[in-house]
Amino acid sequence: MTFAQNRPTNVPSSPLDPETYEQVEQWDIFELVFYASYDGNPFTAVSLSAEFCSGDHSVSVKGFYDGGGVFRMRFMPTTQGYWSYRTSSNAMLLDGQAGSFVCVASSPDNHGPVRVSDTYHFAYADGVRYLPVGTTCYAWTHQTASLEEQTLSTLKASPFNKLRMCVFPKSYQFNTNEPMYYPFEGSLEEGWDYSRFNPVFFQHLEKRITDLGKLGIEADLILFHPYDRWGFSQMPLEVDERYLRYITARLAAYRNVWWSLANEFDIMASKKEDDWEYFAGIVTSNDPIGHLISNHNCLRFYDYNKPWVTHCSIQRIDMYKTAEETNEWRNKWNMPIIVDECAYEGDIDHGWGNITGEELTRRCWEGAVRGGYVGHGETYYNEKEVLWWSKGGELTGTSPERITFLRRIIEQSPGGILNPLPSSWDLPCAGVKDEYYLYYFGFNQPRYRHFKHESDVSYRVEVIDTWNMTITQVPGTFRGSFRVELPGRQYMAVRLALIEDDAN
Amino acid sequence: MTFAQNRPTNVPSSPLDPETYEQVEQWDIFELVFYASYDGNPFTAVSLSAEFCSGDHSVSVKGFYDGGGVFRMRFMPTTQGYWSYRTSSNAMLLDGQAGSFVCVASSPDNHGPVRVSDTYHFAYADGVRYLPVGTTCYAWTHQTASLEEQTLSTLKASPFNKLRMCVFPKSYQFNTNEPMYYPFEGSLEEGWDYSRFNPVFFQHLEKRITDLGKLGIEADLILFHPYDRWGFSQMPLEVDERYLRYITARLAAYRNVWWSLANEFDIMASKKEDDWEYFAGIVTSNDPIGHLISNHNCLRFYDYNKPWVTHCSIQRIDMYKTAEETNEWRNKWNMPIIVDECAYEGDIDHGWGNITGEELTRRCWEGAVRGGYVGHGETYYNEKEVLWWSKGGELTGTSPERITFLRRIIEQSPGGILNPLPSSWDLPCAGVKDEYYLYYFGFNQPRYRHFKHESDVSYRVEVIDTWNMTITQVPGTFRGSFRVELPGRQYMAVRLALIEDDAN
Repeated sequence: MTFAQNRPTNVPSSPLDPETYEQVEQWDIFELVFYASYDGNPFTAVSLSAEFCSGDHSVSVKGFYDGGGVFRMRFMPTTQGYWSYRTSSNAMLLDGQAGSFVCVASSPDNHGPVRVSDTYHFAYADGVRYLPVGTTCYAWTHQTASLEEQTLSTLKASPFNKLRMCVFPKSYQFNTNEPMYYPFEGSLEEGWDYSRFNPVFFQHLEKRITDLGKLGIEADLILFHPYDRWGFSQMPLEVDERYLRYITARLAAYRNVWWSLANEFDIMASKKEDDWEYFAGIVTSNDPIGHLISNHNCLRFYDYNKPWVTHCSIQRIDMYKTAEETNEWRNKWNMPIIVDECAYEGDIDHGWGNITGEELTRRCWEGAVRGGYVGHGETYYNEKEVLWWSKGGELTGTSPERITFLRRIIEQSPGGILNPLPSSWDLPCAGVKDEYYLYYFGFNQPRYRHFKHESDVSYRVEVIDTWNMTITQVPGTFRGSFRVELPGRQYMAVRLALIEDDAN
Repeated sequence: MTFAQNRPTNVPSSPLDPETYEQVEQWDIFELVFYASYDGNPFTAVSLSAEFCSGDHSVSVKGFYDGGGVFRMRFMPTTQGYWSYRTSSNAMLLDGQAGSFVCVASSPDNHGPVRVSDTYHFAYADGVRYLPVGTTCYAWTHQTASLEEQTLSTLKASPFNKLRMCVFPKSYQFNTNEPMYYPFEGSLEEGWDYSRFNPVFFQHLEKRITDLGKLGIEADLILFHPYDRWGFSQMPLEVDERYLRYITARLAAYRNVWWSLANEFDIMASKKEDDWEYFAGIVTSNDPIGHLISNHNCLRFYDYNKPWVTHCSIQRIDMYKTAEETNEWRNKWNMPIIVDECAYEGDIDHGWGNITGEELTRRCWEGAVRGGYVGHGETYYNEKEVLWWSKGGELTGTSPERITFLRRIIEQSPGGILNPLPSSWDLPCAGVKDEYYLYYFGFNQPRYRHFKHESDVSYRVEVIDTWNMTITQVPGTFRGSFRVELPGRQYMAVRLALIEDDAN
């Protein structure tokens, strides 16, 4: 018997009185809190779920134990209107709890979770375009409060609206500090009690995800990663499963969460190939919202043809040809291409972390004009050894403002997205045929370029200096074959936009 | 009956009296000249060959008609000592001519033709190392005398010791002038008499090849190319064959000639795949010296596994990953890798001709540390439209002096060559294990690098700025694991050289 059939009979169908019903914004979190003391291990022994119903629509949601005798249940309503729920549990106090609320229209800054849109692109659930402009601070939630706040301040002033970040703390060069919180009870010295989560750890994580949400930033949440000295990268399979059920119960109702099964799945020696499929099954079956989900590689790509994958989350596998492969990846996997790692702007001891701002900006453009999204990261060495790519802190590089500029150019394109067009071998181009062309010259430095367009329409021509962030309109209108003068510098683009002919 | 058995009996075996015998340097040209009027077409109707013998060694050589009743025969002696010859011809005056000369040691600047040496490298016939430092002036011999002389002056002051150049004139953007000479009698308007070569054309070509030889420059002579408005790229097969027999008869005795069957064989629509094998057979069977020979691609590589190919002559087929493929090419073809076209320094309207001096220099280094040789070209636009890559003239770019610097670095390496060593994924390295390491950082800009060497030896460490052309020794000696400080700029290299321990 489902709860929908057990609906209270005294409920008015509409209009919904705000004084009678709790109101929750569409795509916001409706949270139930239950207090129940329990003698055993509430993390493992208590099951809690609920059925949320609205009209013919019902959604099954899992609850979780949050410590201190508190159980919680979080639900994101995706449609407006009246919702009711009823819980099920093996704990008598938690079982059969019922209630209702009203989901109202979202406030202006709340566009809902991000979805795939137009095959290769993204939009929020309300249809507003989302252009991922990503950066990476893997371990930013494992730092001091003041550093975490600084990271948020930096992000607020940045162009970034997606952040790759790990659930678990990170152990690596420049990452030798202990985290503020651990995900399990116990200690490294005395061992972890993998049967008992540390709610404070997760509450902190949620706070930071909420902080990001307030800044309009999607949390591309990395569920496993290999850079570990505590053992969280090699827990028994049943612990991995319990962890995934726990974190999805806690976070699936957060609209700005994306699931990234791993950072560099292929160098996690303790995981087998099938584990990732198993993990994906746990996450997706416990995520009623269907958040974006992918897996991220080191040396070889994940098989993005797996049915649960929503988008590619790529680390380039060739040191020299990176974002320029975006077309091939689009054609191969037929989904959005996010190149999270094409190497970071910086100057450290690793090829993945010591390219120039010019080169990172170039890679962002190369990906963009091929219809993909290339992510940022920064690894300039500093005496505090607080490097943005992992700990957050400050940004000092030259690429972010150019990435802001690129974002603006993409937003100005038809539909607010870029798709590649057939083009010369040496000049990638995005746009819409006979309407809009964005050519990117990359590291080439021509003094001029000949263009040839067969349709009998006129274009406005602009020369864009992607490094100096200038847009210069070329006097006149252009049709057919024409030549555009260029400054003989690198990193130039040319934009052609159709001039609507009022006479027609 | 061979001529060796028919040797005159009055010849002293040794010592060879210079007053009795004409003397020719080893690897120089011994030329026979015959005057014979002939009523028919001497290019097609007269056959002329000779057998040159020294001891047990005999070489068959073809003669050619040089116009004005003059027939010539050119022979390059490859061993010192007494040589005799006897001609054969269907023309009575040319038949049975016999004589002898003495081949003496070469003068200091004459090292003989270049050969493959150490599988992936080159040396002159006398064993002196030859490091190809190539550039390209495709049509330089089809310009005015003053421009050709200017090209020679420029080359004299340059690092280049190999020049890609076409036999036939070139028709292309910036190449609209008529050549000074045509290879056949006739004209574009009235048609070419493909049965009659124009000796003046070939005499001029030979003069320029001789001029290059005096500068120590190898002529990488392109026998066919597609950029044509005269018809020379689509002659009948029998004309191609006659042309190849003629030009090999004329030029095979020039020690600084390399045969390049084509520039961009794969876009010569009138040639079939088998034609190139047929052409190679004609050239090699008419070249008693066995000059270096290859074929050069545009969009797809030639099959360098063909038995007659001596080295790869590559145009990169990927716009972004170019000389960085050199290791793979070495492993695939097991022969010297010359990347004649990785794109040219310049600023014109084509991706192959508008990279920066920095980028071209970087590609030269990327190829060098992988044990290959990357060629130069320059395509800066100028008002005279005399662009180096085709017409010659002046060099104005920034890469040649850096290429000179690279050449010096290679010369300083053990054996005067670079072979790749296994290295980190982000830092290619050439050298000799436990003795000499040359690491190249390319576009990366690290502030420092950790090195780890397992053998218990000490190294001198130098930081090389390949762009500013400085070599800075790091104070102290280094062994095992150590850190080298770097300036956080692009285009750096680090060189480790074993310190010989006098105490051992």
